[in-house]
Amino acid sequence: MSGRFITLEGGEGVGKSTQARRLAEALRAQGHEVVETREPGGSPGAEAIRALLLEGGADRWGPGAEALLFAAARADHVEKTIRPALAAGKWVVCDRFLDSSLAYQGGADGLGQEAIRALHNVGSNGFLPDRTLLLTLPADQAAVRAAKRDGDGADRIGARDAAYHARVAQAFRALAEADPGRFRIVDASGDAESVTARLLAALA
Amino acid sequence: MSGRFITLEGGEGVGKSTQARRLAEALRAQGHEVVETREPGGSPGAEAIRALLLEGGADRWGPGAEALLFAAARADHVEKTIRPALAAGKWVVCDRFLDSSLAYQGGADGLGQEAIRALHNVGSNGFLPDRTLLLTLPADQAAVRAAKRDGDGADRIGARDAAYHARVAQAFRALAEADPGRFRIVDASGDAESVTARLLAALA
Repeated sequence: MSGRFITLEGGEGVGKSTQARRLAEALRAQGHEVVETREPGGSPGAEAIRALLLEGGADRWGPGAEALLFAAARADHVEKTIRPALAAGKWVVCDRFLDSSLAYQGGADGLGQEAIRALHNVGSNGFLPDRTLLLTLPADQAAVRAAKRDGDGADRIGARDAAYHARVAQAFRALAEADPGRFRIVDASGDAESVTARLLAALA
Repeated sequence: MSGRFITLEGGEGVGKSTQARRLAEALRAQGHEVVETREPGGSPGAEAIRALLLEGGADRWGPGAEALLFAAARADHVEKTIRPALAAGKWVVCDRFLDSSLAYQGGADGLGQEAIRALHNVGSNGFLPDRTLLLTLPADQAAVRAAKRDGDGADRIGARDAAYHARVAQAFRALAEADPGRFRIVDASGDAESVTARLLAALA
């Protein structure tokens, strides 16, 4: 039996990392073997690329170079971590995947979705999740949560301004609306237990 | 006045690095300001990517990830080094560029030229050299020269087998024949002085 590939998506501060961990635990309690992973990174090569992407000044990479690096990391992650886990019958819960590149570099940075999909085709043969859970939160609540992480979560991309993050949120919503077969939009407000329950319901 | 962007291409052991240096010197003697550079690398970001590409085992990167990393390094190199030099009226002599990706990853690795060109369009808006000089040598002579470099020139890609390098040479020749306006094929046999003279003649 082949596993199931589930991605969590959304902007900064919607609680993806916490929920990815909680969702993986809940799925294990249901009897699945679950691999938790996240992008950029998730394999030794992709982690090395992650360091290049998140360190340095805001202008370290132009938008094209950045999109290519994300796609390279993703190709390695898919080949070395995700596909082998699925082939072994495991479920994979991944914090961010292709849709983050479509929303950030394709949408907010203006490269366009066609360009991002072309990179994903070369790197990963267009490989897609079985289910994508988009966590959404009103912008003011997301900003409060993101700010609470202090320096910890502030990297080159998280540090961009509010207008940028509003474009990202808008791009995510458009992606979900364009592919209702793969996406589920999940309200990320309220306590963590309630959000996890909504995610499990969206997977059922 | 804008500068001129000249690339040297060819397989392992044809003498590209030596000739790039000699050609730059000869162009300086003609009164041009010349920037010598090489790929992968040529800018701080691209040099960091170069380290990822050339270190590690033969299977460190799959063909897709490798092509994406080369394109990311090239995007940074074009943006941070090549375009600014040309805009300042300098000539740029570059040891390897897009055609190496077309011949190695596109041709010998089987990704196809369309895929490599798509990555170059995203990363560098399809930016091309004004003139590309393809150095060619019979396979046995190239192998002897490449072997003389010992461990120094033996990296993840140079270390591949003779059949691989024959596919690369064939791919380079096909690229040159398909774009005679940009390419000049230059015989790399004989002493270094004679080869440099041929390169200068091909630029005239």
